[in-house]
Amino acid sequence: MERFVDLIHNKKTGRELSDTDIKNMVRGYCDGSIPDYQMSAMLMAICFNGLSDRELTTLTLAMRDSGQINDLSSIPGIKVDKHSTGGVGDKTTLIIGPIAAACGIPIAKMSGRGLGFTGGTIDKLESIPGFRTDLSTEDFFHAVQHTGICLNGQTGELAPADKMIYALRDVTATVDSIPLIAASIMSKKLAAGSDKILLDVTTGNGAFIKDYQQSLELAHKMVTIGTKAGKNTVAQLTSMDEPLGFAIGNNLEVKEAIHALHGDGPKDLMDVCYCLASHMISLGKEISVEEARMLAEDAIHSGRAWNTFLAMVQEQGGDISYMEHPERLPQAAVIYEYKAARSGYITAMDTEGFGTVAGILGAGRSRKEDNIDVSAGIVLCHKVNDHVTEGDTLACLHTSSLELAQAAAEKLEGCYQFGESPGEAIRLIGDVVV
Amino acid sequence: MERFVDLIHNKKTGRELSDTDIKNMVRGYCDGSIPDYQMSAMLMAICFNGLSDRELTTLTLAMRDSGQINDLSSIPGIKVDKHSTGGVGDKTTLIIGPIAAACGIPIAKMSGRGLGFTGGTIDKLESIPGFRTDLSTEDFFHAVQHTGICLNGQTGELAPADKMIYALRDVTATVDSIPLIAASIMSKKLAAGSDKILLDVTTGNGAFIKDYQQSLELAHKMVTIGTKAGKNTVAQLTSMDEPLGFAIGNNLEVKEAIHALHGDGPKDLMDVCYCLASHMISLGKEISVEEARMLAEDAIHSGRAWNTFLAMVQEQGGDISYMEHPERLPQAAVIYEYKAARSGYITAMDTEGFGTVAGILGAGRSRKEDNIDVSAGIVLCHKVNDHVTEGDTLACLHTSSLELAQAAAEKLEGCYQFGESPGEAIRLIGDVVV
Repeated sequence: MERFVDLIHNKKTGRELSDTDIKNMVRGYCDGSIPDYQMSAMLMAICFNGLSDRELTTLTLAMRDSGQINDLSSIPGIKVDKHSTGGVGDKTTLIIGPIAAACGIPIAKMSGRGLGFTGGTIDKLESIPGFRTDLSTEDFFHAVQHTGICLNGQTGELAPADKMIYALRDVTATVDSIPLIAASIMSKKLAAGSDKILLDVTTGNGAFIKDYQQSLELAHKMVTIGTKAGKNTVAQLTSMDEPLGFAIGNNLEVKEAIHALHGDGPKDLMDVCYCLASHMISLGKEISVEEARMLAEDAIHSGRAWNTFLAMVQEQGGDISYMEHPERLPQAAVIYEYKAARSGYITAMDTEGFGTVAGILGAGRSRKEDNIDVSAGIVLCHKVNDHVTEGDTLACLHTSSLELAQAAAEKLEGCYQFGESPGEAIRLIGDVVV
Repeated sequence: MERFVDLIHNKKTGRELSDTDIKNMVRGYCDGSIPDYQMSAMLMAICFNGLSDRELTTLTLAMRDSGQINDLSSIPGIKVDKHSTGGVGDKTTLIIGPIAAACGIPIAKMSGRGLGFTGGTIDKLESIPGFRTDLSTEDFFHAVQHTGICLNGQTGELAPADKMIYALRDVTATVDSIPLIAASIMSKKLAAGSDKILLDVTTGNGAFIKDYQQSLELAHKMVTIGTKAGKNTVAQLTSMDEPLGFAIGNNLEVKEAIHALHGDGPKDLMDVCYCLASHMISLGKEISVEEARMLAEDAIHSGRAWNTFLAMVQEQGGDISYMEHPERLPQAAVIYEYKAARSGYITAMDTEGFGTVAGILGAGRSRKEDNIDVSAGIVLCHKVNDHVTEGDTLACLHTSSLELAQAAAEKLEGCYQFGESPGEAIRLIGDVVV
């Protein structure tokens, strides 16, 4: 067996690693025989020299195989998983899950919590009084079979190698490598046990990867991995050059999702949800995206998606009276109107900045241990290319104290750009990679 | 203060580190507050993105300042240090030290041991019966003042940061970075306390850096550092595309050095020694290299260099009767004649391979703890562009057993290339960088 230092050298000098090399690397790092200081040098070399499709797939599968692999085979039908690379105001899972389930696609999905400037589906769901995301595996399967959908937290440990490698990447400035991001996401998705995978690859100033071409590259790499691993995978690029919809923050987003499930969500949110739901249904029913879209729209307009959502909430212990009367959900103590300091067109919004400000208001966590305030966040009144007049309310800041609101408002100053005329329209729905 | 992970990110994305960043990095790595896994990621990022001249100089000085700095000011005159980046058959220090000292340049030099395929001056000197290289600082100064020259081992710890960083580089495939090599060498040279520095930058297949342009780049970087640190520094490129002289191995090289000090060493060795000695004398006496060359040749032809060598050996406890009768130095038990398997011209020699084979014979060490056999090594009969006839002796292998000789002979097969006509002459003396 080659010494690991020689493998680092090979990667550094642009040579490919063999499948055996890569498997030994993942195994050796997990069992401690490869020390952190060698692994971090290797990761940095990968940041510069990348990974071939073969190397990338082998790495991803080795990471997948480092822990349990979910077995969803007892659930009839084609299970389609959905993953978003993260955004601000992204409540799509709450909407497209029920749409797809209402169309007969079994949704057995495990989601994560938010960290940094992005929210997490589990946090949003837990802002519904009583809603449980810690169902046992047995209850999870029962819920899917009973209502056609269950959105649960992670049970067991999927791809522990990814967790270890990610922790090292986080402290060695090796997070922003496209192949390492692809391997990290896909190792968990492949371990999650679905039959097919839909990836919502966000791009723009509110996404982890801001450059469109790089986002496209990530989409291609993840689709390549999924396909090579034998799972039909589709990636849809969507823009995060402004927050999705108007609401940012946990129960604020639940309220907006409820509107969307009634068919009257903000246009951008509806467009993205129909687009993603169509891909899910197309994959699950093996029909064209156009046919799938008609089914998705019908699921909303007929009320079946909404009923499926209610059934899910009830099944997972949530109090549906709050869903029927979302105005009863807990409200923030302070709602601060953030006003426009000048007149003009909003030409750009720093979407990541909005995510950070929502965090300051209490909606997010900067460390895993932090608690979140379910009712905190931002409700936008205007978005990119809207014309506003000095003194107009740009956004309402929901939080627990005036101090927090004022601190957030100060940060928000830098998140808007104004101009005399509107700019180009944001291309909300980007390329599809299959 | 910035988090170190952000500094890694800056280097990775091609931004320059500030002087404060670099000083904190060296200090933090030495005191353990920066862990190995972050330092190795930084080193790998430096391998790819390099260091500006300012960054490089700051790094080198911070490494120099991590330990003691020798004070040679009590020795009158301009002290000129000499450093070689390593080679095979390189016994030049034994020859040019006495030449320069005979010309009035005080030589207060600390040398190192050999490792891997290269020999070390200290090992060569210790193959002289009685010769001591562990003089106290007091005795070292006394020797320089008494005989004008002392070649001693390292006393105290120069640039301990370099030692720590090198140990990490060694296991993370980050050794072969030109700026990191330059910083490593120059941090120790600047701490060694001389007034001026002559660098013999070897290049070709027997050097650590084999590519001429890369060697030239290393020379430029080291001269830049020396100059910025206020020490006149000259770098001379010399070829290691064949071993220097005919002898490889400790007392075999001492014997060849004795010939050279009498003026009848092999032509390539004499040429390199005159060239390097001229630079040293030029730096020390502040005269032209041409004038210095005349002084160097006179020091040999007059016998003054030889007498200075004898005085040095005596001062350091060596038995000069062996120097006057080098045939009495210990001889290897086995001298194996390695014969040409075919007729033709020797068109290339794998010089690093010869160094490795000398190590197999007992002349080198692969780990620091290994003992060496002072009489082991190779004496070449032919070099590049010589014509040989099948059955001619190509080299004599000096070692302790026939088994070792045969193992070495087998390895030596691959170290020669033959052809029907001679190739281009080796350019022994390359560029000078000032």
